[in-house]
Amino acid sequence: MTSRLELFALPGLPMVQAGDDLSALILGGLDRAGQVLRDRDVVVIAQKIVSKAEGRTVDLADVVPSAKAVRLADEVGKDPRIVEVVLSESVKVVRSRPNLMIMQHRLGFVMANAGIDQSNVAEADGHQRVLLLPRDPDGSAAAIRARLARHADVGVVISDSFGRPWRRGTAGVAIGAAGIPSLIDLRGQPDLFGRTLEVSIIGFADEIAAAASLLQGQAAEAQPVVIVRGLTWQAPSVPVADVVRPPEEDLFQ
Amino acid sequence: MTSRLELFALPGLPMVQAGDDLSALILGGLDRAGQVLRDRDVVVIAQKIVSKAEGRTVDLADVVPSAKAVRLADEVGKDPRIVEVVLSESVKVVRSRPNLMIMQHRLGFVMANAGIDQSNVAEADGHQRVLLLPRDPDGSAAAIRARLARHADVGVVISDSFGRPWRRGTAGVAIGAAGIPSLIDLRGQPDLFGRTLEVSIIGFADEIAAAASLLQGQAAEAQPVVIVRGLTWQAPSVPVADVVRPPEEDLFQ
Repeated sequence: MTSRLELFALPGLPMVQAGDDLSALILGGLDRAGQVLRDRDVVVIAQKIVSKAEGRTVDLADVVPSAKAVRLADEVGKDPRIVEVVLSESVKVVRSRPNLMIMQHRLGFVMANAGIDQSNVAEADGHQRVLLLPRDPDGSAAAIRARLARHADVGVVISDSFGRPWRRGTAGVAIGAAGIPSLIDLRGQPDLFGRTLEVSIIGFADEIAAAASLLQGQAAEAQPVVIVRGLTWQAPSVPVADVVRPPEEDLFQ
Repeated sequence: MTSRLELFALPGLPMVQAGDDLSALILGGLDRAGQVLRDRDVVVIAQKIVSKAEGRTVDLADVVPSAKAVRLADEVGKDPRIVEVVLSESVKVVRSRPNLMIMQHRLGFVMANAGIDQSNVAEADGHQRVLLLPRDPDGSAAAIRARLARHADVGVVISDSFGRPWRRGTAGVAIGAAGIPSLIDLRGQPDLFGRTLEVSIIGFADEIAAAASLLQGQAAEAQPVVIVRGLTWQAPSVPVADVVRPPEEDLFQ
C-alpha cells in the first residue's frame, strides 16, 4: 500500500511547438529539477502540450461551418466555425444550451466542447486556432513511455480537466495512459471484516490526473508536466479507452 | 503556484468507535509518523471514520421497510431494510436498476446507495449495521479543524469515493471541507496569451480528495487519514455544500 507520495512539477518547460519531442522536453525538465526518473514514477502530461506537439491545431480560417453547425452555434451562442470543429470531433450532442455544448467525443469521453480548446493557443499571423484532443491519447502515452523506457519503467498519463454533471468545478481526469492500470478492480477482495466488497473498481488513472492537476494549474498552463512518485500497484496495465462506459452501462446520455 | 506536493498517510490509527475524538486520533497518528501539523496542511479524512465517530450506524434489526422500500428492493435485488435506510437518507431516486440505486442524498450529492455502506462495519452481537454519511460533513470538517487549530491553521477535507456516470471506476471526492476553497473560481483571469479564460472553476476539494484516495485505499480502509502538504491557494474558504449544482444548473437528473 502506498503510504507516502510525492508530486513535483517540471520547471522551465518551453512553449511546445508542433513536432516537438515531448520525451526530450521531459528529460530536460527533470535535469533542471535535479531529478532522474525512477521505476514506477508516473509522468502526468497536460493534454494541451501533447496536442500541440502532435500539431492538432485547426485554423478557423480554414473551417466552413455546415448548416447543422450554424444552427447549433445559434442556439449556444458560439462561433459557427468552432461549433463545426466540435461536431467534427464528436459522435453525439449530449446536451446543448446557451453557452454550453456537452458532447460525446469520438473517443467516447462525455465532455464540454468535445475538448476543443481556444485558450492558450497562440494566434500566429492573426489566425485564430483551436486545439483538438490527441488522435489516440492512449497511443500517445504509450509512445512517450516507450521513449522514456531506457531511463526507467514509468507510467504515463495524459490529463485533461472535465466538468461533472452534479458537481461544480472541473477535476483532472486521464484521457490517455500507458504502463499503469487505469482501473484497479478490487471486486471479490475481502473488506476489513472478511466480507466481500460490493463496489470497488478504482479509477486509478483519473485519481492520478486529479492529483497532478493540483500542480498543473489551469489558468497559466505553466506546469504541464508533473511527476507522481511513490505509487504502488499490482494490477495489469489498462488503457483509458477501457474507462469509458459502454452504452449498456450508461444511464445518463 | 504549487510546484511540489507531499502526501503521507497516518500510521497505526485504531478502529474508530462512536464518540471517539478524531482530532486526538489524528494527532496521535502524526506523533507516530514523527510529524507535526503545519499551516496549510490539508487533513483528508475518510468519511467512514467520521461517520463511525459520530455514531451514524443503523442496526438493520431496528428498520421496518416501507411499501415503497419493498417495491424498490424487489427491483434492485437488495435487502428491503437497507433500501429503507437509503430512501430515508435521500430526496430522490435518480436511477434504479437491478443491483443499482443512484440517489440524490439529502445533502445534494448524487451517488450510489445514498452513500450507505455495509462494508467495513462490525457486526456486533450478530447485528448487521450500516453506516450513513455524517449529518453535516462541512460542519464535521469545521469542528475537527477547530480542534486542530491550536496546532496549526490547517484545512480539513472529508472524503468519499463516488462512481461517475460516463466513466468506470470510482474517484475520491470531498463531501465536507473547512479552511480551504472547495471551488477556486479563475473566471476572468487571463490565459497565457492574455485572453480571458472561459471555463475555469477548479474543483479543488475534489482534486485533493482524489489525490488522498491514492493512499487511503478502498479495500482495507487501513489508511483513512492522509496529510496533503504543500498546497497553496489565495481564494477564500468555500464549503462542499457550494459544490453541489443547484437544480437550474443540473442537466442530468
